[in-house]
Amino acid sequence: MNKILRVNMTTLTTGTESVPKEWAALGGRALTSTIVAKEVPPTCHPLGENNKLVFAPGLLSGTTAANSGRFSAGAKSPLTGTIKESNAGGLAAQMFARLGIKALIIEGLPKGNNWHSLHVNKDGVSIAEESELIGKGNFAVVETLEKRLGKKTGVITIGPAGEMKMLAANISVKDSDSKLRSHGRGGLGAVMGSKRIKFISIDDSDAPGIKLADPTKFTTAARVFAKAILEHPGTGQGLPTFGTAEMVNIVNEAGGLPTRNFTYGRYEGHEKISGETLRETIIERGGKPKHGCQPGCIIQCSQVYHDKQGNYVTSGFEYETIETLGANAGLGDLDQIATADSIMDDIGVDSIETSIAFGVAMEAGVLPFGDGEGVLRILKEDIGKGTPLGRIIGSGAGHVGKVYGVTRVPVVKNQAIPAYDPRSIKGIGITYATSTMGADHTMGYAVATNLMGVGGGIVDPLKKDGQVELSRHLQIVTVMLDSIGLCLFIGFPAADIPTCVPALLDMLNARFGLELTPDWIGGLGVNTLKTERAFNLAAGFTNKDDRLPEFFREPLPPHNAVWDFTDEEIDAFWNF
Amino acid sequence: MNKILRVNMTTLTTGTESVPKEWAALGGRALTSTIVAKEVPPTCHPLGENNKLVFAPGLLSGTTAANSGRFSAGAKSPLTGTIKESNAGGLAAQMFARLGIKALIIEGLPKGNNWHSLHVNKDGVSIAEESELIGKGNFAVVETLEKRLGKKTGVITIGPAGEMKMLAANISVKDSDSKLRSHGRGGLGAVMGSKRIKFISIDDSDAPGIKLADPTKFTTAARVFAKAILEHPGTGQGLPTFGTAEMVNIVNEAGGLPTRNFTYGRYEGHEKISGETLRETIIERGGKPKHGCQPGCIIQCSQVYHDKQGNYVTSGFEYETIETLGANAGLGDLDQIATADSIMDDIGVDSIETSIAFGVAMEAGVLPFGDGEGVLRILKEDIGKGTPLGRIIGSGAGHVGKVYGVTRVPVVKNQAIPAYDPRSIKGIGITYATSTMGADHTMGYAVATNLMGVGGGIVDPLKKDGQVELSRHLQIVTVMLDSIGLCLFIGFPAADIPTCVPALLDMLNARFGLELTPDWIGGLGVNTLKTERAFNLAAGFTNKDDRLPEFFREPLPPHNAVWDFTDEEIDAFWNF
Repeated sequence: MNKILRVNMTTLTTGTESVPKEWAALGGRALTSTIVAKEVPPTCHPLGENNKLVFAPGLLSGTTAANSGRFSAGAKSPLTGTIKESNAGGLAAQMFARLGIKALIIEGLPKGNNWHSLHVNKDGVSIAEESELIGKGNFAVVETLEKRLGKKTGVITIGPAGEMKMLAANISVKDSDSKLRSHGRGGLGAVMGSKRIKFISIDDSDAPGIKLADPTKFTTAARVFAKAILEHPGTGQGLPTFGTAEMVNIVNEAGGLPTRNFTYGRYEGHEKISGETLRETIIERGGKPKHGCQPGCIIQCSQVYHDKQGNYVTSGFEYETIETLGANAGLGDLDQIATADSIMDDIGVDSIETSIAFGVAMEAGVLPFGDGEGVLRILKEDIGKGTPLGRIIGSGAGHVGKVYGVTRVPVVKNQAIPAYDPRSIKGIGITYATSTMGADHTMGYAVATNLMGVGGGIVDPLKKDGQVELSRHLQIVTVMLDSIGLCLFIGFPAADIPTCVPALLDMLNARFGLELTPDWIGGLGVNTLKTERAFNLAAGFTNKDDRLPEFFREPLPPHNAVWDFTDEEIDAFWNF
Repeated sequence: MNKILRVNMTTLTTGTESVPKEWAALGGRALTSTIVAKEVPPTCHPLGENNKLVFAPGLLSGTTAANSGRFSAGAKSPLTGTIKESNAGGLAAQMFARLGIKALIIEGLPKGNNWHSLHVNKDGVSIAEESELIGKGNFAVVETLEKRLGKKTGVITIGPAGEMKMLAANISVKDSDSKLRSHGRGGLGAVMGSKRIKFISIDDSDAPGIKLADPTKFTTAARVFAKAILEHPGTGQGLPTFGTAEMVNIVNEAGGLPTRNFTYGRYEGHEKISGETLRETIIERGGKPKHGCQPGCIIQCSQVYHDKQGNYVTSGFEYETIETLGANAGLGDLDQIATADSIMDDIGVDSIETSIAFGVAMEAGVLPFGDGEGVLRILKEDIGKGTPLGRIIGSGAGHVGKVYGVTRVPVVKNQAIPAYDPRSIKGIGITYATSTMGADHTMGYAVATNLMGVGGGIVDPLKKDGQVELSRHLQIVTVMLDSIGLCLFIGFPAADIPTCVPALLDMLNARFGLELTPDWIGGLGVNTLKTERAFNLAAGFTNKDDRLPEFFREPLPPHNAVWDFTDEEIDAFWNF
């Protein structure tokens, strides 16, 4: 990965640059955050000409290292106003890596109203005008581009939501099944839309491929790494069996399952939407209970969900979507949620932001809790078509709260709090509060330690003790995962299987001819978090933004847990 | 004014308290800001149970001092998140003052869905349930209450917008003509709506009235004060002749008249909406070219505007409304603007915030620039009825920008920038940037010195020199005006007529038996601004929030002026 591609949408020019030395050992999130922090003025309008959209594969993307194909997108977020990195599966990371592309930087804004596409191949990147696909859903984009450019084309695309610059808009990436994997959270689709780029195609024909510095060492380490993943009960058994929806019953039992806009911690219909029910339903209807989001995935926590007639409905059907629509919006019906998931993929909105926004809209009386038909109608007819109601909900939970005068609005830095109530699972609350990107469980997944003992011993989810240290540790490690291109769940074996981290370092060293030691992980994490934090402070954020909403001081049944961290306790997170 | 009334909407109880010593020499804004800063947690949700709504007459309200009947309302603003004070004319200040009420503090939130009213009289304040007037416009509220309680009843009310907790919602006050004067900006109507209070009636029968410490001295000083007002060309001639709309031609000439969402500084149709045209139209149709917003007003910058048939349309028809709809939204038609003004008064939305929101919506393509019928329809059918589109526009310009992905969004601290482009009138830009309450020309009306020589010599509107010092001086003096209950325009004679300020101090001393010296003005201003600023900092604001939007770096024709203050230059405002 020896080149940076740069696209200027103001001048409609492109170029190829060599990789600055100081970026050599950076990839994925560490690289996108470094570039955004260096090149984007922190106070700029996120949809204006001074924001930049950066894509970068992980350091091990393109190799045979298991689960290393996550693709990072970075920018200043229009939803939160903070720096943002979001990573997704799909094919793009590995194609970029094989093409030797360390990063693609898109800057400027075109002057007119025309739409464009970018085309990445072994020679670099070019810009074309696009009209046929404007207004089309993501699935149509992929289908049309496969006809236009061949079945093997890689695709990075935005749906109508991104074109309309909705703050919940995703960027989606074609996967091995010609379906979609999405860069969720933070509204990066709106940034791509602001630059009037509908899609990016990737052609990796005649790509130079990956050259390993020490192929033998790499292969040995890659085997140890894969073995560690398969040995861990989480990545080897739980996730492949039930998918991430295994969390429904676990979190419900813990009393932290957000229900009816965060007013209750258990959902009476939890069995209707559990991982167990999901698995049974999939098997019964001939879907796939195991499925990967990227080539080289050996966890297979994704799945393919069919309807009663055995027809494909959706894949990559995550706990977050199932919970936030199922319990928090009260739908309680896997078929409705799966249909909603597919529509959200097609129009290109973040399923967490949108589902939590529905919960707030339900509290405001826009539609009743549990109104699945209403949700489907609003997704298709309002968000998909950009009606005023669709614009409101597509702007995310925070804006729904503002526009309807709701006080129970689960957001941090204006980003929706996902499917774990921080009152009953306090570790994740610290992550929500302190994350450099607004509420996001994937920034430091303390749930695993609070509820499942990952990392050697449970940190009591209902107590404050140890949570700040836990979240800090996890946030640092997560930077490493997000920068290597690894799936978040590699955090499980990395924490529990002693051979995992050494194998990871061996792979990196064998890939690049480096001599990284375990200290590198902490250094990368600390530096990246500090870089991200500095961007946010320069943008005007303060410790006052590292707070959960006031309503979390209300007791949450059944444990009647409250969010009881003091400001000082939260602020101690940044003492490193 | 020896008592504080307190209403707790959670417990539905009321009480009367004595005035703490340290509040004795405070009134109006200085008092509401002091109370809000002391009693409201800065990080609370503005529509939640911890916000408080405070009303206070000015120090001289209720006396015969000219133009001293402004009434202050304070709270944490749901629009900006900052501390907020907003003052209005009407009858309430003088009635409160005669009843001896220094302040009314409303706290808590009722539990159920019932609506309430408050009733203030010589015995204190009481709470009643209200249903008949819920959903009704402000004019119907006044009309019904005059039938219910007698023609003399005072009324403080919110329209449907306030009930719906829209962020542009006003609180309105009945005036001498049984029409309305409004506490605009900052969405205080939503705070009253959150507390489920539709209106407050005031009965000043058997009020103890005002006891002057030195009636002779007061009368003498009051005469000198009135004479100064009438002597000044602004308050004695310009404003009584043309109303505030006199500014249309002046600001147009200066190239700072916001046109089509701040893309041009002159409006080709300026003569259609000028103060001169307004005056001629009013006289031709039998309206009133001179009119006061409060008993005791000797400036009479308000007016009564009739339609072509000679029927009443609106009063208090301000430059800001005329400009922001006329030029910035491109309506260019006084009749349409007057009708819009009347509808906005009735549904209870801030005409600046709403009109600027229309400008942003027009840029987004929601309706074309100049579509007056569209504006009237959206006001009545959407904002008035709370449709999704109405909710978006009723949430203010900032939210319209977010929801539609617009980058040219004229707001500071999420509050709409009023009818002076800060690129061509730089002094007002410093006020917009640094005001403790978001963009607000009334916080330090530098336009008067930039364009009209008020204060002894023009500070060049196109240059940076002296603007920070000018805005600081004006912001300090404005606190004094807002605290005494004086109309903003008293700032003109106060700056230019040497007898004015001594007369003011004499009146205060004669009213309360005090010995205030000119130093008192600076002390009050500095203390109040620092109190307000400290609240904002504790709420999470920083100097990064004291910035104009990025798009003001684009040149504004015809002068191609840009906003060129450095961050350091702006931040120097707070060096006192």
